Amino acid sequence: MISRDSCAARDAADRLAPLRLLFAMDRVDAQGVVYLDGNSLGVLPASAPARIREVAEVEWGEGLIRSWNSARWITLSQRIGDKIARLIGAGPGEVVVADSTSINLHKVLSSAIAMKAGSKDPAPRILSERSNFPTDLYIADTLAKQHRFELLLIDDVDVTGHLDDRLAVLMLTQVNYRTGYMHDMAAVTKAAHDAGAIVIWDLAHSAGAVPVNIYGNGPADAADFAVGCGYKYLNGGPGAPAFAWVHPTHTAWMDREHFRQPLSGWLGHAAPFAFSPDYEPASGIARFVCGTPPVISLAALECGVDTVLAAERTGGIAAIREKSIALTQLFIDLVEQRCSGHGLALASPRDASNRGSQVSFARPTHGYEIMQALIARGVIGDFRAPDLLRFGFTPLYTRFVDVWDAVDRLRSVLDSGEWRDARFSARAAVT
Amino acid sequence: MISRDSCAARDAADRLAPLRLLFAMDRVDAQGVVYLDGNSLGVLPASAPARIREVAEVEWGEGLIRSWNSARWITLSQRIGDKIARLIGAGPGEVVVADSTSINLHKVLSSAIAMKAGSKDPAPRILSERSNFPTDLYIADTLAKQHRFELLLIDDVDVTGHLDDRLAVLMLTQVNYRTGYMHDMAAVTKAAHDAGAIVIWDLAHSAGAVPVNIYGNGPADAADFAVGCGYKYLNGGPGAPAFAWVHPTHTAWMDREHFRQPLSGWLGHAAPFAFSPDYEPASGIARFVCGTPPVISLAALECGVDTVLAAERTGGIAAIREKSIALTQLFIDLVEQRCSGHGLALASPRDASNRGSQVSFARPTHGYEIMQALIARGVIGDFRAPDLLRFGFTPLYTRFVDVWDAVDRLRSVLDSGEWRDARFSARAAVT
Repeated sequence: MISRDSCAARDAADRLAPLRLLFAMDRVDAQGVVYLDGNSLGVLPASAPARIREVAEVEWGEGLIRSWNSARWITLSQRIGDKIARLIGAGPGEVVVADSTSINLHKVLSSAIAMKAGSKDPAPRILSERSNFPTDLYIADTLAKQHRFELLLIDDVDVTGHLDDRLAVLMLTQVNYRTGYMHDMAAVTKAAHDAGAIVIWDLAHSAGAVPVNIYGNGPADAADFAVGCGYKYLNGGPGAPAFAWVHPTHTAWMDREHFRQPLSGWLGHAAPFAFSPDYEPASGIARFVCGTPPVISLAALECGVDTVLAAERTGGIAAIREKSIALTQLFIDLVEQRCSGHGLALASPRDASNRGSQVSFARPTHGYEIMQALIARGVIGDFRAPDLLRFGFTPLYTRFVDVWDAVDRLRSVLDSGEWRDARFSARAAVT
Repeated sequence: MISRDSCAARDAADRLAPLRLLFAMDRVDAQGVVYLDGNSLGVLPASAPARIREVAEVEWGEGLIRSWNSARWITLSQRIGDKIARLIGAGPGEVVVADSTSINLHKVLSSAIAMKAGSKDPAPRILSERSNFPTDLYIADTLAKQHRFELLLIDDVDVTGHLDDRLAVLMLTQVNYRTGYMHDMAAVTKAAHDAGAIVIWDLAHSAGAVPVNIYGNGPADAADFAVGCGYKYLNGGPGAPAFAWVHPTHTAWMDREHFRQPLSGWLGHAAPFAFSPDYEPASGIARFVCGTPPVISLAALECGVDTVLAAERTGGIAAIREKSIALTQLFIDLVEQRCSGHGLALASPRDASNRGSQVSFARPTHGYEIMQALIARGVIGDFRAPDLLRFGFTPLYTRFVDVWDAVDRLRSVLDSGEWRDARFSARAAVT
């Protein structure tokens, strides 16, 4: 049996453990909270309060409009984009931070549709998973209807059986938000390319959590487009702006074909401060910026991205992944050992190679109440209807003892039946 | 002749003067700066640093994911929207804060195009001004090309001569960013409606600066759609999220026709936390939200909007407008009295009823250098190529003596010829 002491020993030996100091964990620990929801909103970086204060009080308050130059607000989207690029295997100048994941997906999917619009097929197909994050499906559904593409949603996690010559665009989230199932990006990309399709990856639950090599092993398995989220494993703060990457061969195609992504705003112009009435897209990825970005939220995002980059000195994303697997495996083992007989069934892949940095357990009934009771005991995960208790693990600040404590409290909630208390069934606005 | 003492006397009698305390003017005054660029980026509200700190350190740092409920982040877009609604004559639940002005314009113009797409005309026309803010033109140009509408740009500020039966959508910014020319919203809307067109107003330079009555005097001159900016006269901070308003008859049309605005993201869904794979738009304006908003920047925006609402106790937007006219008139009078012979020609309307809260002077040559030299003397305006020196006046914090001091320093810059110094010709990234 696993003991708390053995977990503490693993923490003592963990080379990533010092990175916990990069977060305001005192604010979390003081509440006795074990936070297992970094897959939804990462913890406040310790550097963020001072940086945000500087941006607000000095750069905005004193620098005023001059800070677009003097504080280099104007290149913030690119600077943070370059940092995120290092986490996904992209090059400098290839990633831009802007808008939300939904909006960036609209930009890149519109581009992919345009690249495939010449197809002879009456309704070229966009393929995705029914369990993909809903905003991806909503954005795709609207674009599919508009451009007379067919949006086909499948229930099978193995998409390779659905790649035929009608396929125009494969749009997947690498790590599923419900189950944590993780696709093999290179293998899936290659199979889709073999079928003649363009591949868009949503890296919302990948960037900062698992190694991503956007270029794969070569042209055959290099992704075509990618988007991702700033406020999950990148710890960028609530609603932090998102990112987008486009393969340089596709921006070159856009140049040749004079294609514009549909959100052709002024900060994606080749010369925004020429204030020309005629749109001319900036070169490369910069054309995927639209309007003026929310600078204070961007500054917080940079602090968050920096926490992940700080791991480069202690093994980088490979070390993060190694610890992530260890944390999720420990959680699975402990729940199955210590909470058996309470109707919890693992809903995440048992094989770590197919599992992102989260673990979900299904419970046929009362999952919501159990999660509320667990949160009342200071273990913060979340619930996804109809039956999933979802737990995220951020190796930068989650300790092995946190996993032990979380399962210990989960066991107490289940053994005591305290989740049956009426107060735990009241539905919150945000679940 | 006007004296500085007479300006000081006007400040002493100004009922809006106490509102200056709502801003961190100590940070501006301590530099000896006269800030006349609130039309580009409003000054930091005094309440914003503490509020931003609370959001970052307490709501994010301690509340973590729970703050979507406990700190009501989930309704922030609507709450701030309701506050902005009071400034533009809209009702509660009719305005939403989201994304950028560019993106909101894309949403509403897409909607207007859909409403007019059944037209028999081979290329229904979108009409705007060549001197409209470029991002509006870029967004419109891309949508026009996509939907085979014609985008016609005119140079005449009197648009009424161009309203014929080909007109589908009239898209104007009420106050021109270059000259400060202000359209009569009700009169122009009525004329466009008489021609059968839909009218979209960009209120970027209006909201918080001039009275806006989005509903006009009745159905004939009520606007159809409006968007606006959070970081100018609403003092929301750099890149603050923008707002959107849609006439309720049009959201009702969208319901009947099952029309979606193209950026159908998850937070515009009728039940986002049901995580349904099928999109169902939220009722009313809420469907114009797309992805997760940048909460920290939203919190700063709320502080900014509150500074404008604080004027409700001392005459409200009417008092702001009255002082705005007095400030801009004083500036014009002083420049024309004290800076004559230096080649400055008023580029803004002399008639205050057609003038927003800014004044621009054209100078055929070296306007850029003169503005840089003026900024070096602590008067911050900006330059818009090829020839405009642009000055914005925010009645909440701009004093009559500020106007006097600004012109006094402008006169020194011109009389001395110090702007000829080589350092003032170096072009900054952001002009």
